[in-house]
Amino acid sequence: MTLETSLIVSALRNWRSNVDRAGKLFGNLSQEQLLQEVAPGKNRVIYLWGHLTASNDALIPLLGLGARIHPELDLMFVSNPDRTVPTVPTILLGEDLKIIWQETTQILWTGFSKLSVADWLQKHGAVSEEDFLREPHRNRFTILLARTAHIAYHLGQAKLSERVQT
Amino acid sequence: MTLETSLIVSALRNWRSNVDRAGKLFGNLSQEQLLQEVAPGKNRVIYLWGHLTASNDALIPLLGLGARIHPELDLMFVSNPDRTVPTVPTILLGEDLKIIWQETTQILWTGFSKLSVADWLQKHGAVSEEDFLREPHRNRFTILLARTAHIAYHLGQAKLSERVQT
Repeated sequence: MTLETSLIVSALRNWRSNVDRAGKLFGNLSQEQLLQEVAPGKNRVIYLWGHLTASNDALIPLLGLGARIHPELDLMFVSNPDRTVPTVPTILLGEDLKIIWQETTQILWTGFSKLSVADWLQKHGAVSEEDFLREPHRNRFTILLARTAHIAYHLGQAKLSERVQT
Repeated sequence: MTLETSLIVSALRNWRSNVDRAGKLFGNLSQEQLLQEVAPGKNRVIYLWGHLTASNDALIPLLGLGARIHPELDLMFVSNPDRTVPTVPTILLGEDLKIIWQETTQILWTGFSKLSVADWLQKHGAVSEEDFLREPHRNRFTILLARTAHIAYHLGQAKLSERVQT
């Protein structure tokens, strides 16, 4: 394995580790727990999960790996704050999010494996050719790292809603 | 810049971005806010800040960049849960943590700049030569990525304690 491949593999492992931790944490919560706020007056756990799921879904086109599979999630979980848009009952159950989480993870993971080192350092989908010439750090790899931290950020919040088993 | 250097620079930028966000968030909280729990019955904000500061400090020897400068933080913020060890009053003010946060950031940032690509892929300080042969991913770069996610994880929690300015 070349040095640069080792670096990318490390970053992919880190992304996957956080995705798996999030999937496990959210997937094991009861509906009652999903509807709890992570702290008084703050987002509900279901919102964080939907937000991260929509974010993963949006990563597919951002990294040039295909089209989104659930763009409708943005209305509830990205464009608007929690509780301002009626949530679809099946989403509330968390079962849909669990499936979409697995689907997006699989699509991304398969797509990642097809990217070369040079591909990772190419521009991501939300930056123009012109801007990328001036700011070459706005590449796919930077997005991967930033999104890993984004998952960890909300995972830490969701973790607060776990109860000690009695 | 070589491909592998670009990858490392991206990871360093991501680490620094999270460190700076954390330093700004914690550093701007009042003493009253630092003593608040991030959610009912959970860690106080001061504990999260001390925990991340101790973690940064421990990163210095783990990456082979020198000796820790404040190992005494571990007793209060790592080895024991929040509120089980009396905190030193000056630490409670947050002023000491603010200084130590800046100091450890500076030491790490300077140390990072001296590491070559090959250095980043060498084993970190908590893995034996023997284990590293079997598990070459247990390198400095992996630690950098994992610690970035660790900062983001607790940053997300601390963010919950921020109040909307009225």
